Amino acid sequence: MGATLNNMEKFEVLNARIKKFCVDREWLQFHDPKNLAISLQLEASELLELFQWTKDNQIKNGKESEISDELADVLYWVIMLSNHYDIDLISALDKKMDKNELKYPIEKALGRADKYTEL
Amino acid sequence: MGATLNNMEKFEVLNARIKKFCVDREWLQFHDPKNLAISLQLEASELLELFQWTKDNQIKNGKESEISDELADVLYWVIMLSNHYDIDLISALDKKMDKNELKYPIEKALGRADKYTEL
Amino acid sequence: MGATLNNMEKFEVLNARIKKFCVDREWLQFHDPKNLAISLQLEASELLELFQWTKDNQIKNGKESEISDELADVLYWVIMLSNHYDIDLISALDKKMDKNELKYPIEKALGRADKYTEL
Amino acid sequence: MGATLNNMEKFEVLNARIKKFCVDREWLQFHDPKNLAISLQLEASELLELFQWTKDNQIKNGKESEISDELADVLYWVIMLSNHYDIDLISALDKKMDKNELKYPIEKALGRADKYTEL
Repeated sequence: MGATLNNMEKFEVLNARIKKFCVDREWLQFHDPKNLAISLQLEASELLELFQWTKDNQIKNGKESEISDELADVLYWVIMLSNHYDIDLISALDKKMDKNELKYPIEKALGRADKYTEL
Repeated sequence: MGATLNNMEKFEVLNARIKKFCVDREWLQFHDPKNLAISLQLEASELLELFQWTKDNQIKNGKESEISDELADVLYWVIMLSNHYDIDLISALDKKMDKNELKYPIEKALGRADKYTEL
Repeated sequence: MGATLNNMEKFEVLNARIKKFCVDREWLQFHDPKNLAISLQLEASELLELFQWTKDNQIKNGKESEISDELADVLYWVIMLSNHYDIDLISALDKKMDKNELKYPIEKALGRADKYTEL
Repeated sequence: MGATLNNMEKFEVLNARIKKFCVDREWLQFHDPKNLAISLQLEASELLELFQWTKDNQIKNGKESEISDELADVLYWVIMLSNHYDIDLISALDKKMDKNELKYPIEKALGRADKYTEL
């Protein structure tokens, strides 16, 4: 071992920081899952706002530096919900990818942006 | 060492899988950031739908098992956007926590669910 | 007849005002339907934010007076989209109600908040 | 005079139909404002989904006929919330336009898609 943390440790340190942040402010009383899900939705909208009125599907001029904070805000609520339900995010997404690969077989989905129900 | 992967490696394996999933289907042509941000927003809404009409701020009866997939769907687009902008999610959220701690000092935010602009 | 306007006239006066507001500011260049739909979504989120963190499913204390403006903002973008596609909103909703009555027959939907696919 | 309804009457007939639709199904028990606001947000997302993955800011090919129903769904929840709070939508939007005209003076806003805080 050595001085550097690997990502697993980094994530655990970060998650411990998030939990302490909430405990210190006595915010757990507010964190029922419905309100967490609303907060996630609101942050996803703030991120989307960075693209409002653009024509070229890129971020607004002068807003590029904000994407990092907005993505972080969304991830924050994803982590809060995963903590609430004791969900391991990595294995949840890994299992979802199993389903996605079945729903979108390469030969049907190749070069198409359609929903699996319309392939 | 050994046969088990740590989380850093797990995340890298997962991210490589996601990238390959998109490349195999020739989907990169669709993945401009505005459409990624819309997709993230749509998945956040699907997650919120699990709580529609509930009174007790818990998930709908019979929908508990869906939360894991919906969270995974949101995380999928968060990762896609972070890949697009080459953002390290863990350090992005770590930096955002620095800001959150300044915006919500304990003595002001204690036991209050108000936005920092209203503390 | 007399000096007072009926609602049809009121709506037409209001819509003419909205159109002039945009023309005067040379905003039509921005108003493609995708960006209108994003704006509608963002305003729906601002309205939802009035309910963030509440437990009792009522609006936040001190925010009651804002609901009127937020509803107006949503309606503004609904009208903008209806103008773009030349849709008569009243008859659109009237037709949708025909469908809703078929999708949710009274004997099946009575006292249930489930989606029609789950009745 | 005459057999035709004007728009005011049309709207009142439509609103009476919506209210009866809910009463007949005993749905008023679910219709607290927070859940109405969530439903409005979910329908705004369904409308936005019609534009997912498009590059040209137009609606998806083959989805044009759905815009009318999706707009109607959004308007439905706008009306439900306005009924809940006894808000006259036309005068609410008229008052909001007064504010918009002050927030976006022509000489500042001309040809710009920026938020009033950034003009």
